[in-house]
Formats: sequence, C-alpha cells, structure tokens
Amino acid sequence: MKNISIIGASGSIGTQTLDVLRSEKDINLVGASVHGNLKVLRSIIEEFGVMNVAVTDPGVREEAELMLSSIGFKGASYFGAEGLEAIATLDEAQTVVTSIVGMAGLKPTIKAIEKGKHIALANKETMVAAGGIVTQLAKAKGVMILPVDSEHSAIFQSLQAGKHSEIRKILLTASGGPFRGKDREFLSKVTKEMALKHPNWAMGAKITIDSSTLMNKGLEVIEAKWLFDVDYDDIEVYVHPESIIHSMVEFRDNSIIAQLGTPDMTLPIQYALNYPDRHEAVAGRLDLFKAGRLTFEKPDRETFEALDMAYEAGRAGGIMTAVLNSANEEAVDLFLRDRIRYLDITRIIGECLRRFDQRVEPTLGNILEADKEVRDYARSVAKG
Amino acid sequence: MKNISIIGASGSIGTQTLDVLRSEKDINLVGASVHGNLKVLRSIIEEFGVMNVAVTDPGVREEAELMLSSIGFKGASYFGAEGLEAIATLDEAQTVVTSIVGMAGLKPTIKAIEKGKHIALANKETMVAAGGIVTQLAKAKGVMILPVDSEHSAIFQSLQAGKHSEIRKILLTASGGPFRGKDREFLSKVTKEMALKHPNWAMGAKITIDSSTLMNKGLEVIEAKWLFDVDYDDIEVYVHPESIIHSMVEFRDNSIIAQLGTPDMTLPIQYALNYPDRHEAVAGRLDLFKAGRLTFEKPDRETFEALDMAYEAGRAGGIMTAVLNSANEEAVDLFLRDRIRYLDITRIIGECLRRFDQRVEPTLGNILEADKEVRDYARSVAKG
Repeated sequence: MKNISIIGASGSIGTQTLDVLRSEKDINLVGASVHGNLKVLRSIIEEFGVMNVAVTDPGVREEAELMLSSIGFKGASYFGAEGLEAIATLDEAQTVVTSIVGMAGLKPTIKAIEKGKHIALANKETMVAAGGIVTQLAKAKGVMILPVDSEHSAIFQSLQAGKHSEIRKILLTASGGPFRGKDREFLSKVTKEMALKHPNWAMGAKITIDSSTLMNKGLEVIEAKWLFDVDYDDIEVYVHPESIIHSMVEFRDNSIIAQLGTPDMTLPIQYALNYPDRHEAVAGRLDLFKAGRLTFEKPDRETFEALDMAYEAGRAGGIMTAVLNSANEEAVDLFLRDRIRYLDITRIIGECLRRFDQRVEPTLGNILEADKEVRDYARSVAKG
Repeated sequence: MKNISIIGASGSIGTQTLDVLRSEKDINLVGASVHGNLKVLRSIIEEFGVMNVAVTDPGVREEAELMLSSIGFKGASYFGAEGLEAIATLDEAQTVVTSIVGMAGLKPTIKAIEKGKHIALANKETMVAAGGIVTQLAKAKGVMILPVDSEHSAIFQSLQAGKHSEIRKILLTASGGPFRGKDREFLSKVTKEMALKHPNWAMGAKITIDSSTLMNKGLEVIEAKWLFDVDYDDIEVYVHPESIIHSMVEFRDNSIIAQLGTPDMTLPIQYALNYPDRHEAVAGRLDLFKAGRLTFEKPDRETFEALDMAYEAGRAGGIMTAVLNSANEEAVDLFLRDRIRYLDITRIIGECLRRFDQRVEPTLGNILEADKEVRDYARSVAKG
C-alpha cells in the first residue's frame, strides 16, 4: 500500500491522476488540494475517502467550509498557501503529485522534499525556476523526482536501458504546436481561440499557449537539464508532429532508445506512481499500423523564438531561467485575459530577460523576490 | 580484460565482430574459426595475435597448415568439426560469438554452454532448431545468451526498461525485403540476382534470401520466443521498410520502448560484447532528420507464406521448428545453386513440414537425425 497526496487535484494532471487511482487499488489518496473547484473536491472526498483537503483560494473559504460540513467531512481541512503546504507535507504520504501550474508549485514542492516525500513532478515551472536548488535538496534528502511530463517520462523510461555516463544526447520531441509551418506574419494575427487548440494533446490553458509558442518545449529543455543532469548542448529538440514517440535517449554506442504511446497523460502518471514497476494500463494501446508514419523535422527557431530564449536563459544560469519562467507566466496570463497580442508574449519575455540579467547562483528567496519584480516589470512593458 | 572467441570469423558477422574489436581494447580475441577462408584467418592472426585457430573445411587442411607454418604461427591449430568445438570451448574464453550460419552452429554452441561460456548469438538457427534444449542448458549453467541479431538486440535493450512479467507484446520489425508489395505472380519469376539484393542491410547470401521470403522473420519469431520466453501470440511482426526502429517491446502499461539506429550490425555486436555497459560507438550515428519518416504496415502473409509456416511450426512444437529450419536451409542452398526456382523454396518447406509431423519434445540426437532426413527429403521433392 502506498499513500499519495495531490496538490492541484482539480486541474488537468490532477484529474488524470484520479483516473489512474481508480484502477490502482494499492495506492491510497490521503490528501488533495484544489484552488477553488469545490465540486471536484467534493467528488474526490466522496469517491476516494480522502481525509486531508485544502482549498487555496481565500475567496471560497466560507463556501468550502459549508460544503465540507454539509457532506459531514470528518477529516482535516486547510486553507490558503498554508493549506497547500499542509497537503504537500502530510506525515502519511510517501509521494506528492505536484500538478498545480506555475511558480505556485515551487514552495510546496520544496517543503515536500524537505519532509522526505518523493515527487511525481508535473509542475515543470518548479524545475525551471529553481532546478539547482530542488535537485540538490532532493539528493540530500534521498528523494526521487519522478517526471510526469510525457517527454520526461519517456526520457526517464529510455534511460533505464543505459547508465547516466553513457548518455550522448537527449532527443526531446515536440509536436510543433498548432502553428508549425507558419511565419511571424501569421503569428502576428493569432487569436486566443486559435492558440488554445492543440493538435494532439488536451491540456490546461497555460500549457496549451506555451505549446503554441514552443516555450513549453523551452521549459522542458530546462527541466530535462535538471532532471537528468545533462548539458544544454546535449539536449536536442525534434519536431515530431504525430506525438507518438514521446522522446528518446541516444547513448554513446549510437543506440537510440525511445518511448512510444498514445498521447495520454495517464501513462506517465501511472509510471511515476509505480516506478520501477509497470501495472496494467489505464491509457489506451497505441496502434502503430493506424499511426501510419512518424516524421521528424528541425524546429523553426526564428519564428518560434521562445525556444532559443529558453536555451539562452538556461546557459546563462543564475536567476535567468526563473526570470524566463515568471515573465512567461505573466505574459501568458495577460494574453489569456486579452490584454496583449500573441507576439507580445515573447516580446515581453525578451524585455524581462534583458532587464534582469543576474547570473549569480540564487537562493530560494532571490527567486521568489525576482518572481514579483519580473511580473511587475512584465505588466509595465505590456502597456508600453 | 575479457577474452572471447569467434566461430565463423570470416563471415559477415564475424568480420563485423573484428571491426568492433578494433576499437574495444579491453576485449581480447583468444580463438577464431573459419570454414575455408585462409586469407581472413591469416590477417586475424597477424592483426589480433590470436593463439587458437580452426579451419573446418577438410579440403583446405593442408593448405592451412602450410599457411600457418609460413607465417610462423606459434599457437594451437585445429581442424574439422572437432576444431570448431575446440574454439567454442577454449578455457581462456568467457564469451563465444557464434557467427557461423545454419545448423552447423548448433553443436559447438551447446558445447560452449556446457563449458559455461556466455554466448553472443548470431546463429539464429541454433535457437530455431533447439531453442528448448539450448535455453534450458543455459539456465542450468548460468550463462547468458546475448542476442546479436539487430531485432533481438533491440528487444533485449528495450526490455531493460521493464520486467519480464510486464511484457505485453514483442513488436518485431521487418524491412519487408526486396519484394515487399509484390504478389505471387511476381515471385514466380524472381531470379537469384533479384533475391540477393536487400534494400537496407548488407548480409550473407543465406540470410538475404531468407529476408526476401520473410522466412528470416519467421526464424526470428521463433528465436524471440526462446530468447525472451514469450508466447507466439505475443510476438507480432511489423513491416517497417526504413529499418530504423530495430524492434520494440510493448509493456502492460501500454508503454512501448523501441531501439533505433543505423542498419549496422556492429551496434548489436558491441552491445552483446559489453552488456550491461555501452562503449563509445563503432556504428555510425542515426540522423532522424535525414531519415525523414518511419512507416509501419502489416506483413502480406498470403504472398509470403514462410511467416505463417514459422508460426505454425513454432506453435506445433516438437521437432517442427527444426524441420522448418533444415528444410529451409536445404531449399535455400538448392536455390543458390540454381537447382530450384524461387517459389520452390516455400513449396519444399511445406512438403517437409507435412512429411515430418512429430510433436514430441526432441533430444539433441532427434534434432540432428531429423536434420539429415529432412535435407534428404527436401532434395528428393525438389526434383519432383
């Protein structure tokens, strides 16, 4: 029996984790947090009998307390940012699934690692903003960071076929997003509706926009750097529009190991929860005869400048990846709220990277402080 | 330092093993056999300083002795079938590369296993004819049978990412051979020259013909069954004309792990010799951008009836796979000597399978006896 908690249980990865738990009878859900989605929280309590819950949005606290009492909830309830940390650090959980989106995941993830919890990491921003701090802490505490991103899960699975010292390259695949093959002229006219339609994956809004700009791939490059302890030069992006090969590892003997599957996040979630074991599938089977053909092309780095921004921020080090991440979060938020146009996203990120050029190894405090400053600055240049 | 010997050193896999040894300075060649190629034997002695050699063709024994004395060879020399066994059982070798073609590999392979040698297995006929006997013996002696076939090496590498109990399917890839897409009418006019041109791989004559009939894939299905202890129902053939994915394993969680590389046998040879380590490559790097696209289709089992013959012989058990193998060897030999036409190959195999329907678990003696009888019968029905 394994006990897990989920932070961000009502989001895309959160609900797909619940799908996995429905067929994993030996995994017990002991804690769950939601931001404000009380309907999902209620159904989680009723279906999984979870005894520790948190609601992080202060605006719905009263409503949440009413709901919990109305269903006769006998467990512990927590609220706000402290509530999130409570769920991330429950004594009875061995693993925490970090499925909230954005920088909000950083502090609870660090708290969880400090308490010796293994992390099933869906919150890539944590690694982008503070990969050095997080991986060092995990090493010191002897906890595993198990990737839930499909690409990083594919890499992690492929790495089972060799040793770290035998890695030549990480081949990170990318669908190319909905605007693959388009030029900047086209991008200048992209609307929110257009950017929210991903060709292969059904995901949350923020990551869908990130996929369309290729920033998602940029963030994944940085995440891969930290998760697998490789150089940026050894991570290559392969546009693979069919999204069937989820990523690959090239070893020093020129053997490439790849992981393939349907575009279904339950597969990497299930692998992370059961590693090193594999259990009977929740995800559907891949039919390669139907898939027909798999293709590969180089990313268009001129049209999709976010990718090189990520490599540059990563190579610069210091707080630059945190700046990249905060600027991107803020810019995407502005875009989703119709405050800026599509190409303003990368323009704003570029301006933030120029403004906050600080390459000294940061503390967690520096990163959190920079986060606020970068967001303020991003908003200020958005207006200009 | 690891000591190996090679039986069949002048053949296709043998000479590619020598290529690998040129860059593996910690692997020492202590023994080598050739059938009659004295030129290659001489260069092996001169380049690798090998101290145990065998020449199995009785017709060139005198010439061989002359050559060995002319170059002042100070090691041990052996001749004939006993010579082959001597090289397969050298005290100083830990691993034997079995790169001779056909049933001739069976006895020396068994002798090597009895002496506790690990086997780098390129001789698939050994497993086809006597898989049950060979795998049981290997288990009892605690020796590893490391596949050298590119497909089986790919499966073996992919299996590192999971456990045996977690296998759902082995997805064995096939180029489809030079006659993919053709019908039986076309096959009825195929000449030796046509059949000897393989689209992707440069190999010996016998395996090239086997690839064109898909018998090679059939033999590989049987080999996979024994090497990886799976049911025939769990081995599926995927025609993949680009020969870039060398085979795959589908696990119970519906994750598929695949191994990719250039069509270069030095890769699986090197992996088998260094397992579980991977050393700096001898094979070239795969450029997936150049490869462009990977496709998959179902094999045409009606035109290429050898594939189902292999499955049926495998499922029947007993000596049927040995019969299949001996009949095929004889028929291919007759075809290569212009005695029969292309479609006679499978006709003869079919007739042999009907004639020798014996499903009791065979001894090694039964198999060797059947081999002679089947070949005689194959020759007799060839004339008809």
